[in-house]
Amino acid sequence: MSRLLLATRNAKKLTELRRVLEAEGVTGVEVVGLDSVPEFPEAPETGATFEDNAVAKATDAAAATGLPAVADDSGLTVAALNGMPGVLSARWAGRHGDDAANLELLLGQLADVPDERRAAAFVAAAALVTPGGGEVVVRGEWPGSLTREPRGTNGFGYDPIFVPEGETRTSAELTSAEKDADSHRGRALRLLLPHLREQAE
Amino acid sequence: MSRLLLATRNAKKLTELRRVLEAEGVTGVEVVGLDSVPEFPEAPETGATFEDNAVAKATDAAAATGLPAVADDSGLTVAALNGMPGVLSARWAGRHGDDAANLELLLGQLADVPDERRAAAFVAAAALVTPGGGEVVVRGEWPGSLTREPRGTNGFGYDPIFVPEGETRTSAELTSAEKDADSHRGRALRLLLPHLREQAE
Repeated sequence: MSRLLLATRNAKKLTELRRVLEAEGVTGVEVVGLDSVPEFPEAPETGATFEDNAVAKATDAAAATGLPAVADDSGLTVAALNGMPGVLSARWAGRHGDDAANLELLLGQLADVPDERRAAAFVAAAALVTPGGGEVVVRGEWPGSLTREPRGTNGFGYDPIFVPEGETRTSAELTSAEKDADSHRGRALRLLLPHLREQAE
Repeated sequence: MSRLLLATRNAKKLTELRRVLEAEGVTGVEVVGLDSVPEFPEAPETGATFEDNAVAKATDAAAATGLPAVADDSGLTVAALNGMPGVLSARWAGRHGDDAANLELLLGQLADVPDERRAAAFVAAAALVTPGGGEVVVRGEWPGSLTREPRGTNGFGYDPIFVPEGETRTSAELTSAEKDADSHRGRALRLLLPHLREQAE
């Protein structure tokens, strides 16, 4: 059985990738996370694009472990903000990972933006880098629009204000299964599948 | 002597326009501000561009007063933020006009953005609208880059972190005369001058 490193310490992301691989019948791959690489130096995500960040993270992880490595970077792009918060989604309010502050700031910035200009999309880039120098990077997008008040408690980040196209619920009001089926991360992972299957063989 | 309305309640902007007109030898125009139009309903600036906002403000002002009206809208565009804060410059931190919060937020968002990607420009659009339906809109840009710490006490808004091209000082360390000569607002007003001269004649 070959090993594949997912460059994350997030247990939910590990579970998600294992679930996607299983659902798609990709067997023979053991997915391990960064917890198995205690000394891995996590570089800051300073790229200008989601793709840059995903490739940089996967490249570092493959180099540090000698394993094929998958990494992702994702965020929310808002049309009225010219595509921002984008790569700065997790630190939009100036500190890293303060979801409540990020969401409150975004709603404040968009307070005077009318409904017809509240389009947004969740975007995820996922990269697979092999120690031999192979590199694939894909992008999944989940288009929708932004509410004026948060709704729902599933999910995290900007989920409570994002309504996917064709939905009336926010992505924080969807079930995990519904979200897996449609979300930017799900789309990106499925685009990566043929390449993961190759690794498995 | 013909009258020209500058659609602002900001005394500094009135002085600036009078000074520019005088310096350029445009006589025969009396510049009045919105303080002479007590009932003027100030519409929120909800346009997608500086030009939209300047034209909307000048149009409202001309309609309300029967005078030719000049209005401007300006802000900071940051390359690493895809041109934002842009039209949201004055309310970037979510509340209108909190300069200190706006500046602190912007520095926090750009904390991991390296020096070579800190390009920015101050941008001003200025519109002249006449009651008969004439409309001119121009744009002045002042290119530069952003520091990591505020410096200087002249100016307002993002001046303390903006270093104009060819300068080592921030625009908050320049004199008012130096700023008038180069700034986005100065450039926009000078582009509008031929049209203001026509009005005076």
